[in-house]
Amino acid sequence: MPQISKRAENMPASPVRKLVPFATQAKQRGMKVYHLNIGQPDIKTPETAMEAIRNIDLTVLEYALSEGNIEYRNALVTYYHSLGFTDLTPNNFIVTNGGSEALNFAISTLCDDGDEVIIPEPYYANYNGFANTFRVNVVAVPSTIDTGFALPSIEEFEKKITPRTKAIIICNPGNPTGYLYSLEELKKLAEIALKHDIVIISDEVYREYVYDGHQQISMLEFTELKDHCIIIDSESKRYSMCGARIGCMITRSQKIHDAAMLFAQARLSPVLLGQIAATAAHENDQEYIRNVREEYTHRRNVLVDLLNGIPGVICPKPKGAFYCVAELPVDDTEKFAQWLLEVYSNNNETIMVAPAGGFYSDPELGKKQVRIAYVLKEEDLRRSVELLKDALEKYRISFNL
Amino acid sequence: MPQISKRAENMPASPVRKLVPFATQAKQRGMKVYHLNIGQPDIKTPETAMEAIRNIDLTVLEYALSEGNIEYRNALVTYYHSLGFTDLTPNNFIVTNGGSEALNFAISTLCDDGDEVIIPEPYYANYNGFANTFRVNVVAVPSTIDTGFALPSIEEFEKKITPRTKAIIICNPGNPTGYLYSLEELKKLAEIALKHDIVIISDEVYREYVYDGHQQISMLEFTELKDHCIIIDSESKRYSMCGARIGCMITRSQKIHDAAMLFAQARLSPVLLGQIAATAAHENDQEYIRNVREEYTHRRNVLVDLLNGIPGVICPKPKGAFYCVAELPVDDTEKFAQWLLEVYSNNNETIMVAPAGGFYSDPELGKKQVRIAYVLKEEDLRRSVELLKDALEKYRISFNL
Repeated sequence: MPQISKRAENMPASPVRKLVPFATQAKQRGMKVYHLNIGQPDIKTPETAMEAIRNIDLTVLEYALSEGNIEYRNALVTYYHSLGFTDLTPNNFIVTNGGSEALNFAISTLCDDGDEVIIPEPYYANYNGFANTFRVNVVAVPSTIDTGFALPSIEEFEKKITPRTKAIIICNPGNPTGYLYSLEELKKLAEIALKHDIVIISDEVYREYVYDGHQQISMLEFTELKDHCIIIDSESKRYSMCGARIGCMITRSQKIHDAAMLFAQARLSPVLLGQIAATAAHENDQEYIRNVREEYTHRRNVLVDLLNGIPGVICPKPKGAFYCVAELPVDDTEKFAQWLLEVYSNNNETIMVAPAGGFYSDPELGKKQVRIAYVLKEEDLRRSVELLKDALEKYRISFNL
Repeated sequence: MPQISKRAENMPASPVRKLVPFATQAKQRGMKVYHLNIGQPDIKTPETAMEAIRNIDLTVLEYALSEGNIEYRNALVTYYHSLGFTDLTPNNFIVTNGGSEALNFAISTLCDDGDEVIIPEPYYANYNGFANTFRVNVVAVPSTIDTGFALPSIEEFEKKITPRTKAIIICNPGNPTGYLYSLEELKKLAEIALKHDIVIISDEVYREYVYDGHQQISMLEFTELKDHCIIIDSESKRYSMCGARIGCMITRSQKIHDAAMLFAQARLSPVLLGQIAATAAHENDQEYIRNVREEYTHRRNVLVDLLNGIPGVICPKPKGAFYCVAELPVDDTEKFAQWLLEVYSNNNETIMVAPAGGFYSDPELGKKQVRIAYVLKEEDLRRSVELLKDALEKYRISFNL
C-alpha cells in the first residue's frame, strides 16, 4: 500500500478534532451543545454583500485575475487609505482564498524545508499546519497567562534566531488570546526584523475588533519594513463572511510580491463571487463595523466577568479579536472537554470548548487552559458560563480535584 | 534584503506570462486580440446555478465543512453513481478550491521533497508549479505529435520509476493535447501502479467533453486501484464556472483521504457560494452538457480542419477537452507569438496563442508547437485561423523561413 508523505504524517490535527465525534454523539442523544470552540460568528454578513450576490448579473462565472480583480483590489486600496496607508496601490495586494491561502503564500515564498519561523505562543493552531505543509519548523517563544499573554521580551526572540530563521509570525489582535500588541512591542519587533534581515508576517484579520477605545496598530506603520513585512488580511471576520473565502496578502516588497504571484498564478484564480460580495461589503461599512464592535465588546465583558467569577478560573480580559484563553481548575482540559460532551448534562445541555494544548508547541503548556470564542449571543454566553461553572463543580467532585 | 525561498525561485511562470504585457500593449494600440491562449470558455454557466446564487437566502456566509457541505457532496455522489461508480459515498470526496487545490492536496499527501511524479508530456503547465511548490520533481515521459500524443509505451514509464516515484499524473482527456486515453492504455497504467505500488493521480476535469461518440474512461473503473488512485475533478470546465473555484479530490483509499483531510482542515473551508452554485448545476444537467458538447464538437471540427488546411501546419484531431496542440512552420513559437502581438496586424486584429514550450519539461520539445483553445464562438475561430494563416505567410517572408 502506498505510503503517505512525511509532511502528511506530521500534519497536526485541529485542537478540537478528537472532540468532534463526541459532540456529534451528544447531539444524537438529543443534547444541546453550545459551541464556544469555533471562530464562526453568528453575526450577520452585511446586507450590502448579500444584495450584491443576489443581484449578480453575470452569465459566465469566469476566472478572476490571479492577483484578484481590479474592482476588489481598488476597494481594498480605499480601505487601506482610510487606515492611513496612502502609499498602497492595487499592486501591493494579492487576493487569496481566505487568510489561509495568504499564509500559505507567505510561508512558501520565504521558506524552504528545514527553515524556521518564530511565533509567540499560544498561537493560532493552523500556523503549525501551514508551516508543516512546507516542512518549515515553528520555533515558539512562550507568553504566559499571568502577563495577559504580553509579547515576550525581545531577548527571548533574539535567542531563537538562527541562520534558518526566515520570519516571525504574529497575530494582532491575537487568536487565541485576544492580546493586542502595543506600539513599543511592535517597534521592538521591527527592530529585530531589520537587524536580522527577517520578515514579519503580521496576521491582522481581527484588526477591526479591538475594544475599550484601543486601536490596532498595523505593522504597515513601520515603513522602514518595506522589504521585511507581509500583512495577512481577510474579510472572514471583518464582515462575518468566513464561507466567502476572501483574504489577501499585502506587501510593499516588489520582490516578495512577484514571487508570491507565481504561486497565485499556478492556482489560477481566487474566488469570483466572494470578491463581488466583499467589494460591496466595503461600501459604507463604518456603521456595520461599529455595531459589531459594540456587540463583541458587550459579549466580551459579559463572558470574561462571569468566567472570572467562577472559583479557580483565571481569564485575562482580551483587548481584541473574539476569543479568550482561560485557565480552569482541572488537571487536563482535553479530558475535561471530552467529559463535557460525553458525560455532563444539565437539562440536556452542555458546552464545547477548545482545549488550549493545540495552541502551544508543547501541548503540556496549555493543559489547564481552554480557548473560548464569544461568537454566541449574550443569552447563550450567560447560559454557557452557567453550565461551565456547574460542570466544573461536578467534575471536581467526580475526580476528587 | 530577505531572500525568497528556493521553491519560489524555481516556480515556473505560466507559458503565456511573457506575452501578457505585449497583449496589453496591443490592446492599448487599439488592436482586437482573439484569445486562443486560455482555458476560459465563453459558454454560459447553467442558469440553474446562477438562479441558486440569486435566490440565496442565507444571512451569514458561514464556513463550509472542511470536506465540503453534505448537500454538495451528495450531489457529487449522485453524479458519480450516474457514471456507474455506485460504491462511492460522500466520504470519498473532499471539496476543494478548484481542481488546483485538489492537485495540491494530492501531491502534498503523497510526496516529500525530492520525491518524483511521472507525467506524460506535453502536460498541463501548472503540474510543474504544484510539484515545485512541494519541491517534488516532475519526470516527463514524452509523447509526440506524430502519434497524436498517444500514451508512450509502458516500458517508457517503467524506465523512469525509481524508489522516489510516488505517483503518475495523467490528464484524461488531456490539456493541452485533447488526447483521450484508451482502455488498453489505462489498463497498462493500472498494472504498473500496482506492480510498483505507486498512485495514479487522474485529472478528469474535462471528462464530459469528449467527442465523436467516444466516452471517457475514468480511472475509477479500476477498482483494484482502491489504494492507488486519486481522481481530480472540478466544476470549472463542466459547467463553465471557473471563477466559482469548486473542485474535488476523490479516493477510495481511507488512508489517503484521512491524510488529505488534514490539509483540508488546516485551510478550514472550501467556498460556500460555489458549492451552492455547483449543487444546483448538477440538477438536470444532461441537456446542458449535451448542448455544450455539441458546441465544442462543432468548434473543434471547424478549427482543426481549417488549421490543417494551412500549409505546413500539423494538428492532430483531439478527441476531448477543448484544446489542440498544433505544429507551425516557424522556428520558435515563443518568438512568433510575441511577433503576433507586437508587430502583426490585419485590419487591426491579431491572435494570442500559447507557445507549447511551457507544456514540456524541456521547452525545446515544444518549440514549434502552440496550444490553441477552442473557447471562442465559430465566427471568431474562423477569423482567428484566417489571421493565423495570413500571419504565418508574412512572418515566413519577413524572416526568410
